[in-house]
Amino acid sequence: MGMIGGGKDAFIGAIHRIAANMDGQIELVCGALSMHPEIAQESGRLLFLPEDRIYNTYDELFKAEAQKPADERMDFVTIVTPNFAHFAPAMQALENGFNVVIEKPITFTLEEAQQLKAKVDETGLLLLLTHTYSGYPMVKEAKQIIKSGKLGKVRKIYVEYIQGWLSRLSEREEGNAGAAWRTDPKKSGKSGCMGDIGTHAAHLAEYISGLKITELNASLNIVVDGRMLDDDGAVLLRFEEGATGTLIASQVAAGEENALKIRVYGEEGSLEWAQMEPNTLTLKWIDKPAETLRAGSNYAGRLSTYATSNCRTPGGHPEGYLEAFGNLYRNFALTLSAKIAGEEPKAEWLDFPSVEDGIRGMAFINNVVASNGSNEKWTKYTI
Amino acid sequence: MGMIGGGKDAFIGAIHRIAANMDGQIELVCGALSMHPEIAQESGRLLFLPEDRIYNTYDELFKAEAQKPADERMDFVTIVTPNFAHFAPAMQALENGFNVVIEKPITFTLEEAQQLKAKVDETGLLLLLTHTYSGYPMVKEAKQIIKSGKLGKVRKIYVEYIQGWLSRLSEREEGNAGAAWRTDPKKSGKSGCMGDIGTHAAHLAEYISGLKITELNASLNIVVDGRMLDDDGAVLLRFEEGATGTLIASQVAAGEENALKIRVYGEEGSLEWAQMEPNTLTLKWIDKPAETLRAGSNYAGRLSTYATSNCRTPGGHPEGYLEAFGNLYRNFALTLSAKIAGEEPKAEWLDFPSVEDGIRGMAFINNVVASNGSNEKWTKYTI
Amino acid sequence: MGMIGGGKDAFIGAIHRIAANMDGQIELVCGALSMHPEIAQESGRLLFLPEDRIYNTYDELFKAEAQKPADERMDFVTIVTPNFAHFAPAMQALENGFNVVIEKPITFTLEEAQQLKAKVDETGLLLLLTHTYSGYPMVKEAKQIIKSGKLGKVRKIYVEYIQGWLSRLSEREEGNAGAAWRTDPKKSGKSGCMGDIGTHAAHLAEYISGLKITELNASLNIVVDGRMLDDDGAVLLRFEEGATGTLIASQVAAGEENALKIRVYGEEGSLEWAQMEPNTLTLKWIDKPAETLRAGSNYAGRLSTYATSNCRTPGGHPEGYLEAFGNLYRNFALTLSAKIAGEEPKAEWLDFPSVEDGIRGMAFINNVVASNGSNEKWTKYTI
Amino acid sequence: MGMIGGGKDAFIGAIHRIAANMDGQIELVCGALSMHPEIAQESGRLLFLPEDRIYNTYDELFKAEAQKPADERMDFVTIVTPNFAHFAPAMQALENGFNVVIEKPITFTLEEAQQLKAKVDETGLLLLLTHTYSGYPMVKEAKQIIKSGKLGKVRKIYVEYIQGWLSRLSEREEGNAGAAWRTDPKKSGKSGCMGDIGTHAAHLAEYISGLKITELNASLNIVVDGRMLDDDGAVLLRFEEGATGTLIASQVAAGEENALKIRVYGEEGSLEWAQMEPNTLTLKWIDKPAETLRAGSNYAGRLSTYATSNCRTPGGHPEGYLEAFGNLYRNFALTLSAKIAGEEPKAEWLDFPSVEDGIRGMAFINNVVASNGSNEKWTKYTI
Repeated sequence: MGMIGGGKDAFIGAIHRIAANMDGQIELVCGALSMHPEIAQESGRLLFLPEDRIYNTYDELFKAEAQKPADERMDFVTIVTPNFAHFAPAMQALENGFNVVIEKPITFTLEEAQQLKAKVDETGLLLLLTHTYSGYPMVKEAKQIIKSGKLGKVRKIYVEYIQGWLSRLSEREEGNAGAAWRTDPKKSGKSGCMGDIGTHAAHLAEYISGLKITELNASLNIVVDGRMLDDDGAVLLRFEEGATGTLIASQVAAGEENALKIRVYGEEGSLEWAQMEPNTLTLKWIDKPAETLRAGSNYAGRLSTYATSNCRTPGGHPEGYLEAFGNLYRNFALTLSAKIAGEEPKAEWLDFPSVEDGIRGMAFINNVVASNGSNEKWTKYTI
Repeated sequence: MGMIGGGKDAFIGAIHRIAANMDGQIELVCGALSMHPEIAQESGRLLFLPEDRIYNTYDELFKAEAQKPADERMDFVTIVTPNFAHFAPAMQALENGFNVVIEKPITFTLEEAQQLKAKVDETGLLLLLTHTYSGYPMVKEAKQIIKSGKLGKVRKIYVEYIQGWLSRLSEREEGNAGAAWRTDPKKSGKSGCMGDIGTHAAHLAEYISGLKITELNASLNIVVDGRMLDDDGAVLLRFEEGATGTLIASQVAAGEENALKIRVYGEEGSLEWAQMEPNTLTLKWIDKPAETLRAGSNYAGRLSTYATSNCRTPGGHPEGYLEAFGNLYRNFALTLSAKIAGEEPKAEWLDFPSVEDGIRGMAFINNVVASNGSNEKWTKYTI
Repeated sequence: MGMIGGGKDAFIGAIHRIAANMDGQIELVCGALSMHPEIAQESGRLLFLPEDRIYNTYDELFKAEAQKPADERMDFVTIVTPNFAHFAPAMQALENGFNVVIEKPITFTLEEAQQLKAKVDETGLLLLLTHTYSGYPMVKEAKQIIKSGKLGKVRKIYVEYIQGWLSRLSEREEGNAGAAWRTDPKKSGKSGCMGDIGTHAAHLAEYISGLKITELNASLNIVVDGRMLDDDGAVLLRFEEGATGTLIASQVAAGEENALKIRVYGEEGSLEWAQMEPNTLTLKWIDKPAETLRAGSNYAGRLSTYATSNCRTPGGHPEGYLEAFGNLYRNFALTLSAKIAGEEPKAEWLDFPSVEDGIRGMAFINNVVASNGSNEKWTKYTI
Repeated sequence: MGMIGGGKDAFIGAIHRIAANMDGQIELVCGALSMHPEIAQESGRLLFLPEDRIYNTYDELFKAEAQKPADERMDFVTIVTPNFAHFAPAMQALENGFNVVIEKPITFTLEEAQQLKAKVDETGLLLLLTHTYSGYPMVKEAKQIIKSGKLGKVRKIYVEYIQGWLSRLSEREEGNAGAAWRTDPKKSGKSGCMGDIGTHAAHLAEYISGLKITELNASLNIVVDGRMLDDDGAVLLRFEEGATGTLIASQVAAGEENALKIRVYGEEGSLEWAQMEPNTLTLKWIDKPAETLRAGSNYAGRLSTYATSNCRTPGGHPEGYLEAFGNLYRNFALTLSAKIAGEEPKAEWLDFPSVEDGIRGMAFINNVVASNGSNEKWTKYTI
């Protein structure tokens, strides 16, 4: 694996490396780790990269790697730059025959995402979009439970993603780099909070329920004076097949950490999952006691292979965010290995977020922003 | 105390009697407990009422009680009939000089509520509206914390009230009387779920935050085929002073019991309270660890007298719904006793829901139904 | 009902009155509420007792009440004096033909408890010992589950009762009357913490499991300097049929409220109940997901009538300590009414703690104190 | 790093590799992964080891690695064989100049552990004993809080470690290899449950409190018929400075996963930590509301550097068991790197379990088994 962005002080780059390292199947072999050559060089050395594979730009990286023999060059590249700088390296990667891992949101605009999809379709290469939360085993179990029909037809979906870390004007007052680019429309895109975390919530809702959003009624807020993008919002949702729901996202919910939570209600029962205690999935029933499913358990085969194949430890040994992230990488890598070996990847491995999810993420942002600007109650979800 | 409605088999009547009984300061002395004379008589006997104070109609009750000397007649009357039958007995009570306790929603229409308020103002009598949830000590503490400014200016309010008991068409299939009248527009009013439980949620939000709703954007659903009133809905809210929020209410959330929960976010921190574990109030802060306040504790005087005076047991001996209900009655009775004795009631006693809250409840229903019927995103909250 | 002790500032007397009042079936009609005549008189007036039934001593009370006609005199008397003053009035009550409710521990010594049992057997009168915690519906459900064999043979019982209110030398420093008599061997008996709360824990373990303690290995501590009785201790337990367990009790666990909790493990699964969230009973299984049973629910008949008949509200409307206490009184009163009416009481009503439980409580204290004083590891539990 | 044991189906070997891999600072370079040559070879290939560094025995491994130049040979070796096979390779490693990572319990007997300590002292090499649970950031925070004196003098320690996975005779009925050797005295040692998990609990109690056990009163049980070693037990504990406590361990607690939990009570407050939700540390106080500390947070510098330096993600992105394990490896590796570089390691890095902890673990087993076999209540803890 190669990496673009993710130099020494970048939070998300380090997370990607831990996730990729975790299972001992992926090795970081090269990188263009910063747009600042000194940082790129220093970061590369800290990561024990060979001197000649520490690149100063991604142009250099693609050129050099593409010229290596197939068994020496990187198999894929991970792009962990700010949003505005996703598209160009991703296209270049695909054009040079490299598979791609990319942070969400996939691009800066929907149009770019669509171009990327066209290129993916054309090249047949793999693209992993790191919607981390769908890598949790109990999220996968939730999806399978809905799919099985055990809860009956889905009626309601409540999803919320609540953080407090932008409760103050951190982007200016504290010189917080992560806050700065995320709240800057030139780097982040047309939405702040909804783009950064609302898209995760929307993805989770569609992923678990298997239903797509068809209409929405959004209201965005800039709560902290002086901020340039929304830091809070709520959306009423209509889904396929008549389900309805709400999506709440906030980055100014003082005191909250990273409270992503989803509840899905069917005719016969419901499920509830919260990211901050991710190893537990609660099922509630009309006529039976609530049940608690736990990652790492199996219950004599009751849990699906989608859950069990994404656990590394037995029940009661908690796995967390990094393992969920690792699951994305592992499934991507297993799929890639199978492909390289000319074998059929398992369905469980293929279950990672792709360029299609990236397009829906960009469309979600567009539709939410459009609805927020409209006096009409409901906006049709369009792509 | 006298009682209108609440004959044997009526759920809420029994609850009112337990709540009133609890502290040994209120005695049930008479009743017109059912519109069916035999049930009225039988119910009265089961409650050890004297034969001559078991009435068959509330007309009889008011006539007979009003003629008794002041120290013999009932001090107040509790009305626990279905919604459509609140107004007439309440008016008659006030006209006959009796204080009134009344189940929410206060009346069938906003106009009736306003007439009731006029009569209350004219007579100077007391009216208690049983928004039970504001009787919990930690709800009272929450209100005082917001009022104190410790959390800073309020920015966000999330309130939700989720039940599952109407997940099936219970009003027809199972001969469930409570379900039947609650889903019948002729008995319940123009809203089902929002009238029955949405009003509780709205009251709680306004009570704790001290802010009134100014605009709303509502969407109601009839989820179960064949039902005549909304059984589900969501409302985006705007409050005074720039706060925003969401209100979710559902009676078709399969597997949920009575999940009323509120979160209020200020500039410096937030609070969270959930009715199903009512003795706990959680405070979260930007720069400090979260704190857990517990009913029955005092923390060397840190809890307000509004909380401590509404507890009966020390910390760790859980109080529940009936005690919260009992607090409404106790505060009402203490205020009434003070008034009778010509003394000034304490501020803590006066802190019970009144006819003004009833008017806001009716207006909430009206505004939600209006917004639901409108294509415009936002509807101004009017009374 | 009459009451001995429980004058105006006594905590537990007020609790008994709320519990007895709750269901409108029991009325306080007389009392000897304090050993100080002025307090007895004042307390009686505050409780609206008729002047001629406010007694200054329990001798007076029994003499006067016994002379009244059967339909006027009290049906039973509640004794809520400190431990050392339980026996004499209880004997006198029984000798005068009155049924008895008594706070635990039943007496000051085991011998007194045995005499009381002999008198109960002789007179055929009823005695209720207020081990409150066995009045919770989910405790009753737990007992029925064990009895049903669903968990298989019981192997392990862990019970703990942890409080922090005696973390300081409150009996002297703060003039705390409750602390003072509880830590005084002349008023409380030969054990402090184990007598006050250890007995509750032991009762709960035996009640739920249906197994009696046969051997124990105890270690008691006086943690706070200057205290005269144990304020902390732990006991290893052996039960009938080969089960083993531990009992932990402490009143110096700083920061704890009233943390009574029990876990019972069988061959196939286990149950867990904690008093501070009493409406929930958790079942865990070897091969199935854990289940959460909730008071007020029924699950299409799955909960036993022992649980359902001890609930007043539907699921999600929490009941608490006072309702559990009320259940003891209600079941006692229903049994008494049936007896008076010459009818057979239901098994559910008879399920209240009796004089036999009182004897085991006193024996538990004796055995724990004996074991604590012995160098031998195991002490046979003797009565 | 090299590895002895941990072939392809061994659970704990895989865990060690994930933990070591996690931060990209440690690379597996060689191994003698199984006593069966074919498995050793196959396992090595699956892990991408160079052919010439896949050894069939640890003798071969040490001989070959020791002959390599310093910058090529492995820096340390990890021993993950069953208990009885720890000592010999560990001694050989030290004698050949290799640092050692070793699974607990450190050896088969106390005597071996003492010999190992002598060799560690003699060689000055590093030894890491993987008491994983002390690698959790909130466990480290707990230790620092106690050390700071904020809770006052420690009075009580309750520690419990409860599992259910040996509720059936799995060692025979299901051909479970892990169950088989753990319950075989020839492979596991003189204690089963207490050796396997009781030692973790004892280590955690001593680590957090900073107090050593001085006396104990133990009772062990073989609950499942046919088992050869204890599968359950409880120990009353006395610690230095007058603190007392209890330790409960069970592997037959049907339905439990891996429930390690500790509570420590001081004069002013207490702390509580549970491994199954490891990112939370609860503090309770006599006169203040309980506080919840969360891993990944900092609270404006309130958390110690021992906690913060052992987190990889911000608050609300849960870390788990593998990260705790990774912390042991990371601190060990950082200490080793510092040593190699001739620098002083930070105190935070040095905070990993060592040979001294291994000796206490073996002594704990000895003392518990001795106490269990004695009729005397208390056994002095001796080494």
